[in-house]
Amino acid sequence: MFDRIALIGIGLIGSSLARVIAQKGLARHVAIASRSVDTLKRAEQLKLGQSYHTDPAEAVREADLVIVSVPVGSSGAVAEAIAPALKPGTILTDVGSTKASVIAQMSPFVPEGVHFIPGHPLAGTEKSGPDAGFADLFVNRWCIFTPLPDTDPAALDRLAAFWRACGSNIDVMDATHHDKVLAIVSHLPHIIAYNIVGTADDLQNVSKTEVIKYAASGFRDFTRLAASDPTMWRDVCLHNRDAILEMLSRFSEDLAALQRAIRWGDGDKLFDLFTHTRGVRRSIIDAGQEIDVPDFGRHVAEQPAKS
Amino acid sequence: MFDRIALIGIGLIGSSLARVIAQKGLARHVAIASRSVDTLKRAEQLKLGQSYHTDPAEAVREADLVIVSVPVGSSGAVAEAIAPALKPGTILTDVGSTKASVIAQMSPFVPEGVHFIPGHPLAGTEKSGPDAGFADLFVNRWCIFTPLPDTDPAALDRLAAFWRACGSNIDVMDATHHDKVLAIVSHLPHIIAYNIVGTADDLQNVSKTEVIKYAASGFRDFTRLAASDPTMWRDVCLHNRDAILEMLSRFSEDLAALQRAIRWGDGDKLFDLFTHTRGVRRSIIDAGQEIDVPDFGRHVAEQPAKS
Repeated sequence: MFDRIALIGIGLIGSSLARVIAQKGLARHVAIASRSVDTLKRAEQLKLGQSYHTDPAEAVREADLVIVSVPVGSSGAVAEAIAPALKPGTILTDVGSTKASVIAQMSPFVPEGVHFIPGHPLAGTEKSGPDAGFADLFVNRWCIFTPLPDTDPAALDRLAAFWRACGSNIDVMDATHHDKVLAIVSHLPHIIAYNIVGTADDLQNVSKTEVIKYAASGFRDFTRLAASDPTMWRDVCLHNRDAILEMLSRFSEDLAALQRAIRWGDGDKLFDLFTHTRGVRRSIIDAGQEIDVPDFGRHVAEQPAKS
Repeated sequence: MFDRIALIGIGLIGSSLARVIAQKGLARHVAIASRSVDTLKRAEQLKLGQSYHTDPAEAVREADLVIVSVPVGSSGAVAEAIAPALKPGTILTDVGSTKASVIAQMSPFVPEGVHFIPGHPLAGTEKSGPDAGFADLFVNRWCIFTPLPDTDPAALDRLAAFWRACGSNIDVMDATHHDKVLAIVSHLPHIIAYNIVGTADDLQNVSKTEVIKYAASGFRDFTRLAASDPTMWRDVCLHNRDAILEMLSRFSEDLAALQRAIRWGDGDKLFDLFTHTRGVRRSIIDAGQEIDVPDFGRHVAEQPAKS
């Protein structure tokens, strides 16, 4: 499908791409770049590509597809570093969780003739690094493109075909809308998870040991998102600030109303909210975006250990 | 282990008990009571016990262990209904998520000679009803007792042995402390999950369809707790009000600080919090209270569907 694909960054997303590209034969040569020598060495041990580079410019030379998979705060620096080595006709894309900021950072460096198409595959786990990736990470997940006004439709089609080959569904929207949507479906949940885990870890009257021991009663669900990569999530908070602050303010408003219902013993109001939210999960399962197994399938996955 | 066990309420917890009692042979006769005729009929179809009663007093007659598994707001009514039929020496316990309120509701009705031992198995899924239970729900989960000052140690030992036979680990603490601990490890996570799902379902600039489609980027994790039984959770909110309000207030305080760090671009503060919380999940896995598989094992559980 491509002759040479350059993967700049080889963490969870980059290494999952490397694996699916190899599995499906989507490129003749995969060039891998990481500024961390250790990460690069590990990628080589895992045989994730055909060449390995600490200088991203070397990796992108002669590449016809360049995928930048780094924390969004580093997008500008990467774009600056690779720009002189990009050949005309190359498709340059990224996988960042915020799009307006990535566009603002990268666009100024993109040379004439290079097709810059910002993208975001909505896929991941709480793990990071080259060992964490797997080939079917993108299967049945959405990949959102936020093309620029002058994006070449043929290049967009070619990139979409690549992501479809990785198993993804494709959507297209503008960057500002993407950032609002992701603020509610992804950024707010992560921030709330980080916050509640922080609160629980910082109490006087309940010990840390108790929080750990009794975590299966609900708390542990939040610890997964709160175990996500700190650099990535710091950058998301810094680079999608306005949309996140808006969602946080709505969340806090709603929480104040819920808190008031608890204080005043308004059982009907509580019951209505708790009934209403039940249907949302059903819809997500019906949309194929969650498995239809109780407890996230934990009981299925741990069966061998238990019995 | 017991001659006759009466299960008052045959939802997720009650029906899981019925299944493990049958599997391990922990009683000669299991008497099942539900005030819902449909639920009782379903329990009978599932062959969960030996006798079925709409009147809980009939179920407890001649029982040497009575386990009340109803929403905590119904505990008092159940105790009043069964009290005249309890025989001396019977152990009466419950599985409610709040303990001070259950003790206040049930104690006044407990006859002389009956051993009332409040209990709480920290186990469950987001599903409810007699079909939702399974025999190994309690394996490796904690069951907390909050005995009263005059609790007979021999009766407590006997009840603990029963729960151990169901697979549980046992802890003992006072009711007030239990309610504080559960407010942070269970009640607050559920309330926050209900709240965020409510917020996401109620936006103008992001459609419900988008929230559903893109839920795999984080949001879906919260929908599991927010799909829990509404009656149960309304009652928990009403019956552990003070401890919940305290935890909510700490949570909101911490969230305000986090929001401020986002507003002012304090990357170091964000990075510190996000790094710190990562270790908490590791501790929960090490304590055997979470599975050591990325993404809650979703990828394991859905493997057949994907490949």
